[in-house]
Amino acid sequence: MKKSAIILLSGGLDSTTCAAIAKNEGYDIYCLSFNYGQRHITELEACKRVANYFSAKEHLIINIDLRVLGGSALTSGIEVPKHRDSETMNKEIPVTYVPARNTIFLSYALAFAEVREVDHIFIGVNAIDYSGYPDCRPEFIRAFEHTAHLGTKAGVEGKSNLKIHTPLINLSKAEIIKLGVKLGVDYSITHSCYDPKEDGNSCGECDSCLLRIRGFQEAGLTDPLNY
Amino acid sequence: MKKSAIILLSGGLDSTTCAAIAKNEGYDIYCLSFNYGQRHITELEACKRVANYFSAKEHLIINIDLRVLGGSALTSGIEVPKHRDSETMNKEIPVTYVPARNTIFLSYALAFAEVREVDHIFIGVNAIDYSGYPDCRPEFIRAFEHTAHLGTKAGVEGKSNLKIHTPLINLSKAEIIKLGVKLGVDYSITHSCYDPKEDGNSCGECDSCLLRIRGFQEAGLTDPLNY
Repeated sequence: MKKSAIILLSGGLDSTTCAAIAKNEGYDIYCLSFNYGQRHITELEACKRVANYFSAKEHLIINIDLRVLGGSALTSGIEVPKHRDSETMNKEIPVTYVPARNTIFLSYALAFAEVREVDHIFIGVNAIDYSGYPDCRPEFIRAFEHTAHLGTKAGVEGKSNLKIHTPLINLSKAEIIKLGVKLGVDYSITHSCYDPKEDGNSCGECDSCLLRIRGFQEAGLTDPLNY
Repeated sequence: MKKSAIILLSGGLDSTTCAAIAKNEGYDIYCLSFNYGQRHITELEACKRVANYFSAKEHLIINIDLRVLGGSALTSGIEVPKHRDSETMNKEIPVTYVPARNTIFLSYALAFAEVREVDHIFIGVNAIDYSGYPDCRPEFIRAFEHTAHLGTKAGVEGKSNLKIHTPLINLSKAEIIKLGVKLGVDYSITHSCYDPKEDGNSCGECDSCLLRIRGFQEAGLTDPLNY
């Protein structure tokens, strides 16, 4: 039987590289994306392109309304910060932080995995260029995995083999890009910007764009996106 | 400053008793309910009555689409089992089990708690009459609490005081009812049935009805609901 994996897919550099890694390791992939009131539909379009690119067996897009919770520039009216230097990015938890986002995303991935009888979940969290999000830390991921073992039918029956893979956790953005390129990823299909311009192009000024641009520079490669 | 708590509220006996306990302990309460494609709106109406009864500071109802995941009689077309004896109920994980449901619900509660700066979450899980759900076990709750500490802003800053309260975890249904009655709960506003009749009355035959009916009998009290 072919092994299968759920890929948490945002359509950005990291989750796309995760999908490439899983594919390369021989997994059949099931993509899981979220429509959580993103200000632009550009992100979901990138998700669909990526799922298609990797011939996902299924691409599930779940509508979740995080806007009711407020508290983040990504889902409410707060302005997305621009031109922050990397020291600030790494020190401060940014306003783009969505409370408990990865906990919610992983919970849905767990449900999807349970229903499809899939034992592997890939999530592109990163503890290096992680832009200050608490739920990207390795200790958080291991704790969630443990919780998942206990909270599922398979866990009760002593049959849970669920594993959460975080292949990017110790890589710099440049290393992620170099790895992806080595695996043949076409990054022109991805999307990273928190605050795209009206023509759909990336702003080039938000944390996510700055990390991406710097990543390509450090990798000595050309970013195929227009800014 | 008055202490506050998020109550995960389904409008049933257990979550309603949880709300009564939190109120009685002096918490201001924030109720959190989910609309997850229940086959009947009766459950959400009960949630609203209960939130109102306890003068909740806020009652947030989040729409989540668990139907896309399939796999449960509560959210898909599978028939709700009737007249199961208690031995079967306690041994088998029932078809009414929704994969990762409490993990998803607690994740939203965590986000709500973080945004409202609330440190307490009450969930009416029960390890005695728990009807076979893996995510009602104490070890699952403790693991989730640990994950929550690691996955939030307050956790990173070493300031997380988040506590998940499970005041019913070791009580029988009869004990829960007796406790609620002592605290003055009017159980006529609650709703337990998995499969209500067309007139809105409870079926009296599903696991949830059977546990409720037996609970009132064992408590020597009269269930105010019509069957």
